[in-house]
Amino acid sequence: MYKAPVEEIGFALNKVVGLEDALARGLHGELTPDLVDAILIEAGKFAEDEIAPLAETGDREGARLEDGAVTTPKGWAGLYTRWREAGWNALTGPEAHGGQGLPTALSAAVTEMWNSASMGFAIGPTLTIGAVDALETHGSQALKSIYLDKLVSGEWMGTMNLTEPGAGSDLSGLRTRAERREDGTYRLFGQKIFITYGEHDWTGNIVHLVLARLPDAPAGVKGISLFLVPKFLVKDDGSLGARNDVKCHSIEHKMGIHGSPTCTMIYGDGTGETGEAGAVGWLIGEENRGLACMFTMMNSARLYVGIQGLGVAEAAFQKALDYARERRQGRSTLLAKTPERAGEVSAIIEHPDVARMLLTMKALTGAARAIAYACGHAIDLGRVHEGEEARRWSERASLLTPLAKAFPTDVGVEVASLGIQVHGGMGYIEETGAARLLRDARIAPIYEGTNGIQAIDLVMRKLPLSDGGAVSAYIEELSAVAEEVRASNSPAFGASAEALAEALADLREATGVLLDRLRGKETDAALAGATAYLRLFSLTAGAVYLAKGGLAEPAREDRIALARFAAENLLTEVTGLKRQVLAGAAGLDAARRALN
Amino acid sequence: MYKAPVEEIGFALNKVVGLEDALARGLHGELTPDLVDAILIEAGKFAEDEIAPLAETGDREGARLEDGAVTTPKGWAGLYTRWREAGWNALTGPEAHGGQGLPTALSAAVTEMWNSASMGFAIGPTLTIGAVDALETHGSQALKSIYLDKLVSGEWMGTMNLTEPGAGSDLSGLRTRAERREDGTYRLFGQKIFITYGEHDWTGNIVHLVLARLPDAPAGVKGISLFLVPKFLVKDDGSLGARNDVKCHSIEHKMGIHGSPTCTMIYGDGTGETGEAGAVGWLIGEENRGLACMFTMMNSARLYVGIQGLGVAEAAFQKALDYARERRQGRSTLLAKTPERAGEVSAIIEHPDVARMLLTMKALTGAARAIAYACGHAIDLGRVHEGEEARRWSERASLLTPLAKAFPTDVGVEVASLGIQVHGGMGYIEETGAARLLRDARIAPIYEGTNGIQAIDLVMRKLPLSDGGAVSAYIEELSAVAEEVRASNSPAFGASAEALAEALADLREATGVLLDRLRGKETDAALAGATAYLRLFSLTAGAVYLAKGGLAEPAREDRIALARFAAENLLTEVTGLKRQVLAGAAGLDAARRALN
Repeated sequence: MYKAPVEEIGFALNKVVGLEDALARGLHGELTPDLVDAILIEAGKFAEDEIAPLAETGDREGARLEDGAVTTPKGWAGLYTRWREAGWNALTGPEAHGGQGLPTALSAAVTEMWNSASMGFAIGPTLTIGAVDALETHGSQALKSIYLDKLVSGEWMGTMNLTEPGAGSDLSGLRTRAERREDGTYRLFGQKIFITYGEHDWTGNIVHLVLARLPDAPAGVKGISLFLVPKFLVKDDGSLGARNDVKCHSIEHKMGIHGSPTCTMIYGDGTGETGEAGAVGWLIGEENRGLACMFTMMNSARLYVGIQGLGVAEAAFQKALDYARERRQGRSTLLAKTPERAGEVSAIIEHPDVARMLLTMKALTGAARAIAYACGHAIDLGRVHEGEEARRWSERASLLTPLAKAFPTDVGVEVASLGIQVHGGMGYIEETGAARLLRDARIAPIYEGTNGIQAIDLVMRKLPLSDGGAVSAYIEELSAVAEEVRASNSPAFGASAEALAEALADLREATGVLLDRLRGKETDAALAGATAYLRLFSLTAGAVYLAKGGLAEPAREDRIALARFAAENLLTEVTGLKRQVLAGAAGLDAARRALN
Repeated sequence: MYKAPVEEIGFALNKVVGLEDALARGLHGELTPDLVDAILIEAGKFAEDEIAPLAETGDREGARLEDGAVTTPKGWAGLYTRWREAGWNALTGPEAHGGQGLPTALSAAVTEMWNSASMGFAIGPTLTIGAVDALETHGSQALKSIYLDKLVSGEWMGTMNLTEPGAGSDLSGLRTRAERREDGTYRLFGQKIFITYGEHDWTGNIVHLVLARLPDAPAGVKGISLFLVPKFLVKDDGSLGARNDVKCHSIEHKMGIHGSPTCTMIYGDGTGETGEAGAVGWLIGEENRGLACMFTMMNSARLYVGIQGLGVAEAAFQKALDYARERRQGRSTLLAKTPERAGEVSAIIEHPDVARMLLTMKALTGAARAIAYACGHAIDLGRVHEGEEARRWSERASLLTPLAKAFPTDVGVEVASLGIQVHGGMGYIEETGAARLLRDARIAPIYEGTNGIQAIDLVMRKLPLSDGGAVSAYIEELSAVAEEVRASNSPAFGASAEALAEALADLREATGVLLDRLRGKETDAALAGATAYLRLFSLTAGAVYLAKGGLAEPAREDRIALARFAAENLLTEVTGLKRQVLAGAAGLDAARRALN
C-alpha cells in the first residue's frame, strides 16, 4: 500500500528547489517551515488512509452514465466531500474568497500524494484550480462573487471545455457557437469531447469554462472567447435554479483512470429547463480573447498534469520495491558469496537486473519530482516578486513548464512499465495493482498538450525568451551545482562530476545549435530534434537536482548513491540525444520516404 | 484494419536472413520460393479476413470460467477449427505424423501475422508446437503414436505447465509431486499457475506437459521430470475415456490478452473420473531429466514469444500510420512552405514529431523482424546441416535466441506505446484499439523467461559459446554488411556507414569486456550491464539487417531511407549503452544504498 514519502517530498521542496530559502526571506508571508511540514504530514495521512484504499475499487467499478447522470465509483463522492471539508481544495485559492493562498510548489507536492494514491480521483479537483485561476484573473466582479467562494471551497467543481472532434491540439478549428443576448448573457451551442469530470455526483453544481466562437468572430484562434456555463443557473440568493441546457451525452471507455468520467458534453440541444434552447453562459474576460484567458492557467494546468505522472511513478516504485524485497527467487551472486546463507533463496532485489530497474525507477521519479517542484516554485516567485525579479522568475516558470509537463508524464509511463516488469507474471494480473498504474499513467503524456507539443513549445517559444538569456541563465545555475559536486571531492559521488559536466556541455551545445537555427529561421531543423532535446534537457536538469540533494545532506548516503546512479547511468543517454538534435531535419526528411 | 505486410515479410525472410539462398542450395528439400510466397499470401489472407475481425470482441468479452469449464470469446472456437482445418497447425510438425515439416523461419513469419491480427488468439496454438517438439524428441513410441498425429493436426492442443507459486524464473523450488505406479504410469499432485490455455473450448482433449518431482528425486533442478497428462484419458482405440484428475481452478484477470485463458491448474485433488486421486501421467524422456526436455523446446518457444512482440508492433505501426495520414490538425512547416495549399490543414504525419514517432516504430519493428527471423533460420540450418556446420548454426541459434525473445518483446511495448501517442486522445479510448495492443504486448517481456533473464542468458551462457567464437563470428558477419554500405558510396544511405561502423565497434568493445569479465569470474560486473548489452547488441544487429535490406534492392528508396533513419537515429543510443556495460558492478553496488 502507498506510503506518502513526506520526508523526501519536504526535502525536495525545501532543500532542492529552494522553498526553505524563500520562506526565510519572507516571500510567502506568514508561511513557516513548520506549517509546510504539518501540511505535508496531514496530506500524506489523507492520501494513505482515505484515498489509496478506494483506488482499486474505483478502477474496477469505473464511472457510469445513466439518463445523463454520472455515478462515480462507490465511496468516491463521500471521499471528495471529506477531502474538501478537510480544506484541501482551498489550499491555493485566493484568501479573499476563503482560500489559503499557499504556494503552487506546496500544492504540487500535496497533489503528488493525491495522484500516488489514485490518479483517477485526483485529477477531478485539478480542473477546479484552473477554473479558479481563470475566474480570479479575468472574471467580472459579479461572476467572482457568485462562483469563486464555492469553487475555492470545492462545494462546486469546475471543468475545462476546449476539445472538439475537429479541434484538439489546434484550436483554430473550434466550432462551438456563442450568441449574444440583450441582457449581456450568451447562449452556447455545440459539442465538446474529452471533458474530464464534465458530469459527476460529487457536487451540487458544476461550473463549466467553455471556449466558443461568436458569430462575428475572426477566423482561427483569434476569434475564440471563454464562457462560464453553470450546470444549474444560480439565483440571486445563491441557491440553485433551473437546469441549464448542457448535458453529458456519453462517457468514454478508457484504458485507465476508470473512475474519472471523461464526458462528451452537448451544449444547447434544448433539453434544459431554462425555457429556451442554448446553454446560458457568461463571458470571462473580453470577447475573442478567450485563448489569452486559457493561457493564464496553462502553466499551472500543465504542471499539475506533470504531477500526475510523478505521482504514479512514485506509487509504482514503492509497489515494486515492496515486492522485490519480499519475493524470493533464485540465488544472487551476492548470496553465493556468503557461505553462511547457504540454503537461502534471494529476495529478487538482490539480483543486479532487478536492482537496476528499481534504481532507474527511483532516480527518474526523483528527477521528475525536482523538475516539477522547481516549476511550481518559479510560478510562485514570479507572483510574489515584482519588476525585473518577477519577470525573471516568470520566464523560468515558462521555460520549465514544458519540461515539468512532459518529462514526469513520460517518466510515469516508463516507471509504471518497469514496475510491472519487476513483478514478473504477477505484474500482469490486475489484482496486483501494478498494471493499473501503467494504464492510468498512459494518458498523461497525451492530454493538456501532447508531449510532442511540449517539445515544440520548449524549442519555439521558450528558448527564445530574453533572446536565449532565460535558458542560458538556468543552465549556468545547473552548472554551478555540478561544479560543487566536483569541488566536494567526495568519493561517494563516483564519476558524477564528470558525467554532469559532460551532460551540461551537451545541453549547452544543443541549446546553442537550436537557438542558431531559430535565428536562421530553420524551423524544420529546430523541430526535428525537439523531443530529443526536451529529454536531454530534463535528464540533465533532473540529475543535477539529485546531485544537489546529495550535496545538501552529506550524511545521507542513500541520496548521494541515487545521485551517482543517475549521473552515471541515466545520463549515458544524453550524448545520443544530442546527436539526434544536431542531426536536424535532413535525415528526417529523407526518411519520410519510408512512410510512403 | 490490419493488412498483412506479405511483401515485407517475404523480403525479410528471403533477402535479409537468407531463406532464398537456403532454398537455392536445396537445404529445405522440395520447398520452393513460390511455395513460400503462396504460404505467406494465404496466411496473410487468413489473418486479415478471419482472425483480425474477432480481435476486439475477444478482448472485450474475455475468457470465462464456469464450473471448471472455460469459454473463450464468441467465435474463437470456430475460428480455431477453421484455422487448423486449413492446415496452419501442421506447418512445422513432423511429416511422419501428418505435419508439413516446413522451416521454423517460415513458421515464425506466418506466426507474426497471427499475432498482428490477435495476440490473444495466436498464443494458444504456440503451446502445441512446444508439446510436439518435446514429444517428438523425447517421447516413447507409444506416446507418440497416441498423441502426435492429433497434436500436429491441432485436433488436440498442448500446454506447458512449469510455473508454481514458489517456482517461476527459478524452477528449483518446484513442488508438484509425481508418484510411480506399477503399470509404469504416474500420479501427479500439485498446483500450477499462469498456464496459458490450460483449459478451453477449442478441442476435445488437451495434452498437458507437466514438470513434477518424484518422491526420491534429488533436490533442485536436477530432480525434475516431465510428464504428459491428458485432460481425458485416451482409450486403446483412440477415443476419449475417463476425465483425468486435473482441472482448471481459476483464470486470471489480466491487463491484456483477455481472450486467452490463463489458468491455475490443480492436479490430483480427486475430482476426476478415474476412480482414484492423482492425475494419470506418463513420463516423457527419463526421470529427473525433465529440464533437459524443456530446454529442447526453449529456443523455439522463446522465439515464438519474440514473434508475439513483433506481431503487435507491426499492428500498432499500421494503425498509427493509418490514423496519422487521415487525422488533420495544425499546419506543418511543410504546408507553410507550399503557397498553393494556403487554406489546408495538415495531416498529422506531416508534423516532424509525428513522422519521427512513426519512423521509430517502423524501424524498430523491421529490426525486430529481422532478428527474430534470423533466429528461426539459424534453428532451421542447425537441423538440416550435419557436423561442424550444424554445430555452428546451432550456436548461432543459441546466441540469437535471447535477442529474438527480448528485443522484439521490448519493441512490442515501445511501439504500441508510441502508437497510442500518435493517436493523441483517441489512443486512450479502448474502441480505437491502440490501447489493447499495449495491454496485450505488455506480457511478452515477462513470460517465457523475463527479458532480464534473457540478458543473463546472453551474457553468461551464449557469449562463452566456442570460447567467444560464436559471437565474434556473428559480429564479423554484421561488419561485412556495414562495409558493403560504405563501399556502396550511396548518398541515400547518408551517414549510415559511419553510424554502423561506430556501433559495431562499440558492440565489439562491450563484448570483449564482458568476455574478459567472464574469464576473470567477475560475474557481478558481467551481470550489471547485461540488459544494456542485450539492447546494444539488438539495436546494432537490427540496424545492420535494415541496411542489408537497403542494399538488396537499391531501387527501393523507402528501404534505404528506413535503414538510414535506423542507423542515424536508433543507433545514437548505442554509445550510452556501451558506457553502462563498461561501468560494471561498482556503481550498481554503491547505488544499492539508495534502496535501503
